[in-house]
Amino acid sequence: MLWLSCLIPVVVLCFTILQYKRLVSLPEGTSVMSQIAQDIRQGADAFLYLEYKHLSVYALGIAIVLAIFLSWYVSVAFLLGLFVSSLAGWIGMKAATRANVRVCNNARITKNIGSAFSIAFQGGSIMGLSVASLASLGLLVVVFVFGIGVGQLNPSQIGILTNGGLIHFIPFPMTVSGYALGCSLVALFNRVGGGIYTKAADMGADLVGKTELALAEDDARNPATIADNVGDNVGDIAGLGSDLLESYVGAIISSIVLILHTFVLLGAQQISSATALHLTYYPLIFVLIGLASSFIGIFLVLRKKSISDPQKELNTSVYISAGCTIVFTFLFTWMYLSPIPQSELQNLSFSFGIVSPWIASAVGVVVGIMIGATAEYYTSEQLAPTKELSNFSKGGVSILITKGLALGMKSVLITVALLSVGILASYKVAGLYGVAMAALGMLSFIATTVTVDSFGPIVDNAGGIAQMAKLSPEVRTLTDKLDSIGNTTAAVGKGFAIGSAALAALALFASYIYAQLGPADVGIGHMRTILTLNIMEPRTIAGAIFGGALPFFFSAYLIDAVVNSANKMVQEVRRQFIEIPGLMEGTAKGDSKRCVEIRTQGALKKMQIPILIAAGVPVIAGFLLGPNFVGGILFGTTLSGIMLAIFCANSGGAWDNAKKRIEAGEVEDERKGSEAHKAAVIGDTVGDSLKDTVGPSLDILIKIMSITALITVSIFKVIHLF
Amino acid sequence: MLWLSCLIPVVVLCFTILQYKRLVSLPEGTSVMSQIAQDIRQGADAFLYLEYKHLSVYALGIAIVLAIFLSWYVSVAFLLGLFVSSLAGWIGMKAATRANVRVCNNARITKNIGSAFSIAFQGGSIMGLSVASLASLGLLVVVFVFGIGVGQLNPSQIGILTNGGLIHFIPFPMTVSGYALGCSLVALFNRVGGGIYTKAADMGADLVGKTELALAEDDARNPATIADNVGDNVGDIAGLGSDLLESYVGAIISSIVLILHTFVLLGAQQISSATALHLTYYPLIFVLIGLASSFIGIFLVLRKKSISDPQKELNTSVYISAGCTIVFTFLFTWMYLSPIPQSELQNLSFSFGIVSPWIASAVGVVVGIMIGATAEYYTSEQLAPTKELSNFSKGGVSILITKGLALGMKSVLITVALLSVGILASYKVAGLYGVAMAALGMLSFIATTVTVDSFGPIVDNAGGIAQMAKLSPEVRTLTDKLDSIGNTTAAVGKGFAIGSAALAALALFASYIYAQLGPADVGIGHMRTILTLNIMEPRTIAGAIFGGALPFFFSAYLIDAVVNSANKMVQEVRRQFIEIPGLMEGTAKGDSKRCVEIRTQGALKKMQIPILIAAGVPVIAGFLLGPNFVGGILFGTTLSGIMLAIFCANSGGAWDNAKKRIEAGEVEDERKGSEAHKAAVIGDTVGDSLKDTVGPSLDILIKIMSITALITVSIFKVIHLF
Repeated sequence: MLWLSCLIPVVVLCFTILQYKRLVSLPEGTSVMSQIAQDIRQGADAFLYLEYKHLSVYALGIAIVLAIFLSWYVSVAFLLGLFVSSLAGWIGMKAATRANVRVCNNARITKNIGSAFSIAFQGGSIMGLSVASLASLGLLVVVFVFGIGVGQLNPSQIGILTNGGLIHFIPFPMTVSGYALGCSLVALFNRVGGGIYTKAADMGADLVGKTELALAEDDARNPATIADNVGDNVGDIAGLGSDLLESYVGAIISSIVLILHTFVLLGAQQISSATALHLTYYPLIFVLIGLASSFIGIFLVLRKKSISDPQKELNTSVYISAGCTIVFTFLFTWMYLSPIPQSELQNLSFSFGIVSPWIASAVGVVVGIMIGATAEYYTSEQLAPTKELSNFSKGGVSILITKGLALGMKSVLITVALLSVGILASYKVAGLYGVAMAALGMLSFIATTVTVDSFGPIVDNAGGIAQMAKLSPEVRTLTDKLDSIGNTTAAVGKGFAIGSAALAALALFASYIYAQLGPADVGIGHMRTILTLNIMEPRTIAGAIFGGALPFFFSAYLIDAVVNSANKMVQEVRRQFIEIPGLMEGTAKGDSKRCVEIRTQGALKKMQIPILIAAGVPVIAGFLLGPNFVGGILFGTTLSGIMLAIFCANSGGAWDNAKKRIEAGEVEDERKGSEAHKAAVIGDTVGDSLKDTVGPSLDILIKIMSITALITVSIFKVIHLF
Repeated sequence: MLWLSCLIPVVVLCFTILQYKRLVSLPEGTSVMSQIAQDIRQGADAFLYLEYKHLSVYALGIAIVLAIFLSWYVSVAFLLGLFVSSLAGWIGMKAATRANVRVCNNARITKNIGSAFSIAFQGGSIMGLSVASLASLGLLVVVFVFGIGVGQLNPSQIGILTNGGLIHFIPFPMTVSGYALGCSLVALFNRVGGGIYTKAADMGADLVGKTELALAEDDARNPATIADNVGDNVGDIAGLGSDLLESYVGAIISSIVLILHTFVLLGAQQISSATALHLTYYPLIFVLIGLASSFIGIFLVLRKKSISDPQKELNTSVYISAGCTIVFTFLFTWMYLSPIPQSELQNLSFSFGIVSPWIASAVGVVVGIMIGATAEYYTSEQLAPTKELSNFSKGGVSILITKGLALGMKSVLITVALLSVGILASYKVAGLYGVAMAALGMLSFIATTVTVDSFGPIVDNAGGIAQMAKLSPEVRTLTDKLDSIGNTTAAVGKGFAIGSAALAALALFASYIYAQLGPADVGIGHMRTILTLNIMEPRTIAGAIFGGALPFFFSAYLIDAVVNSANKMVQEVRRQFIEIPGLMEGTAKGDSKRCVEIRTQGALKKMQIPILIAAGVPVIAGFLLGPNFVGGILFGTTLSGIMLAIFCANSGGAWDNAKKRIEAGEVEDERKGSEAHKAAVIGDTVGDSLKDTVGPSLDILIKIMSITALITVSIFKVIHLF
């Protein structure tokens, strides 16, 4: 069954390559369009190239450290994770930066929203499918090469063996965590570096262009416009894709780690090696079935000849993917887990028999969709909260900002209440393994989620190209329609990303606690009663308080980076308008390459502190004060990181849409250019860095800290200073 | 020794009454001044009267519930706490609203900053001394009447006894917690109700007055001005005083509860009744010595005939109080705890012998001062962060707001790192009892802290009266100088309040865990190893996540309340300017009473949800899902409440001072009325509700939730639905 399901990602990957070939065979349109598209492409390529260059320095350092202190197993797995995630980001960007101009051209020629939509969807699907297939393929390689499949499972091979304080056998859980760390590092670079890049470019372009020179959005004369369009690809395509990829891998490996450690804990008397092996492979096959289901959902839309309602198609694709995942994984679970004896199920706390992990995953799907709906409720311009907010823009900037902050803060409660219920329910069903399965449920149809989310930036870019190439307004109207569909899906997607990251982080946190087990713990009892991280322990409580502040500091650092970079961009654009004669009149061309370069350098230089916080703090804290302190830090960071991320995403989203509502003429007596609109634009700018840089980066922070701790805990649990 | 030290608060209270008499014997000045002062006084009285009326309804309900489900002991203690805290607030307000006009008059006649300062300080000291003396007197009554002093200590009298599920003996810890709950409820009303009142009045006065009609601050024609001045007294005098009073009582009772439960836990073999009794009285006498020390510090300033440098006097007063506290409590600790045998000290985890609790309290003092200094660092207009922020105001509103948010977020890390170190150090020294002692150390010279903090609003009011009575600008310049001194101390005081609230809340949280012990646990072992709240328990983790969101929701609710109330105020002021002929010309008088009424009603109507969250959630959650869920909620709320409170206080403070820096002409090329100044005014308005309503109220939220849980846990640990 495992071998058979391994074919799925291979087949999907082949299909994706074919799709890519089909995409590039479409015409690019006029030479102006082609030129603009090439500029964007080159900017994006330049960013990725420089980013991967920076990344490789850190990666090499980490790989060497891992090889020396742990094992070359871990190091190789780490590099593989890095490669797989970078490759997915690269393919996705390549596809998106080719799809944008083709969407625009199609709209220009056919004037048909359906056929333009098809191309954008096709471009997005290349990202979505490659994320899911590459991530799972890489993980399969790790499992088969270093893996548990080689022999029968033996508790002592899983736990860590120490001999007089020296570690001389590296267990499998650590190796899969190494793979996850590789994926995380790429995600950190894409989300943080990309996030700074995107927003600095956006703010920079707006501050000079719109405010000082009264140019329209995406005006070709503004040399920062290309950087802005590059930013959409960097942040929203590569960033979002690698973020979800990381959650995906995190959820899979935490369910593997949890089951392996449960096996250690319960001992071979209570749970047989065969069952443990079975359950270890279970999440792997589970996600492959999810991939196949997503493929069906995506394929059904791709093969449609004529499309009239794009929103409906997007929804269909998501519902079919989710529905197929739920049905197929149920059948699979039923078949696959039947051999497990009744007594073992009880020892594993599977309250509802063999389908327990499936029920937990279904809980995850439901909770994920509800969290997405909550995000939509708070940020949609059609619904009460944002409507109210946009009306408050009449009261001036200070009231609008204050109310927007309140809106984001308020939205936290329902979102986390859903998470709490999800945790309680999935735990009830299958213990901590259930929590990991809930995360997996949310993420199993990731291919579709990423496809739908990538659709937005592609059509956004298409609109930008139409504007810059001065195509007829009709084309822009068409792409704007597609764009507004993209915005709705983006809000839901963001909520989904945060929800799944939160669950994945909690599962990783649980794995961290479990990873402190050693061979001495073999067979010590029932998992529910044994493993504790006691809040009353002073190190844990001090760690939690300290950890709780890290997301705040991290956010502040990112905001500073965006503002400072935007300032530099503003100076460059001002300089160009002064020094390049004819730029304002449209007779000369701005040096957009220089803008892209400034941004790229600016964003990547700022990566040291985020990396230090994300990967350095858990290790340093561990070697100073040991595993309980780190446990506290992880818990505190996860807790306040989730809250802040939700707050930032929803405040920012609501301000953005409040502005759009005024622009659409839906607020009585107000329109573009009125005082209320000016206030709303300020709200939007404040929200921009919150929702597009801070919020998404916090997702990564909480996951990467857990994974780093998970890999290193077996060392610092033995050796720490105090 | 105990009896002797009981004289301290009685003597202090008598002295305070004399001070009050001396204060009111001073002249009020012209009849205009007198009239304005009377308006403010009446407004403040009307607010307090209505507030206490509202409060009494809730209080009666809670008292009945406590009497029925727990015992009339708890109920009476609760009412006593309520009475004591209300009385302190009432006295403080009475003194402040009489001192303000006298400060103004003195400045008018003598033109001497020193003698005006003396009166303001005298007014503040009445609040400071009555807070500390009334709170400790009330607690002494509870201890002597219901107390442990009646007979020898017996473990079974402390733990709760259940007979077939029915509770038929109410232990002493619950009774002192009842007293604390009374104090908390008043603090909640003063801080939340007062905070909404203050900021809505402030925003309302500014929005119409400054923005629409271009009136100056404190212009007598603006009918909302009186309400604004009333607000300063309500929020900053009564609010701050009752907040610190609550932390003070919370810290004392948590050290009592912890030691009593440790006694239960260790059993009479490991720690004798005599030692337990000794240690129970220890924090009580400790704070009385702190009160005496503060009295010295305050008295030295009060008796000075001529004062040239008010800032120096304030500092002297604080340093002498803190220094005397440290020295005297050391001597006391040495004498008082000598009888404890060595073996018992070890069982109690007193790592440094008998002076261990004193060392822990000294850690608290140091940490408290450093947290205050951190708040000053981030918000002082003389120092780098706020200087940088004020320079960013040149970049426009959105950058100023964004940077201000980042500044507040950044300030969280150092503050909580200090807290973490404080927790680790004090725990190392004397276990959890040490953590409670650290909180107590911070709070033991509360009389001086409150005096210094109350000084600010008194001189602020004096300036307002000078403006409204159209006194010569010289007078206003003088009061402004005093005001700016008040602002610096206010920032430090706010940091101190948050820091001490955080430590007190953590001590209460620990008490909550300990309060789950029963007679069955008598003598079960060493405290360090036994008591756990396991984060890995799904209820705890779900509770923590849910609890973490409560401060966000609570904050959002308060912000909404302020904005909505300010809106109503704006409408009322607009109406008056339209309907009252001659108001704008200054020939007719506005109906300031109506403004005060609107605000009072508005603020008090909004109390239901905050009370429900603060006192309802722990109880409801407890009866639904039991003590571990509530433990998680408390932890999550405390954690995210501390972070949010620091963030709000420092962002708000920095915006405020960034604006002041521009007004003082310290930002190059900018002055009052320039674009940058307008941006800074908006920043200040956004920050106002964050720093004066949200931040301080979060302090109360985290403490009152812990106290409510502490009182009710022995019931819902036995009875809960799921």
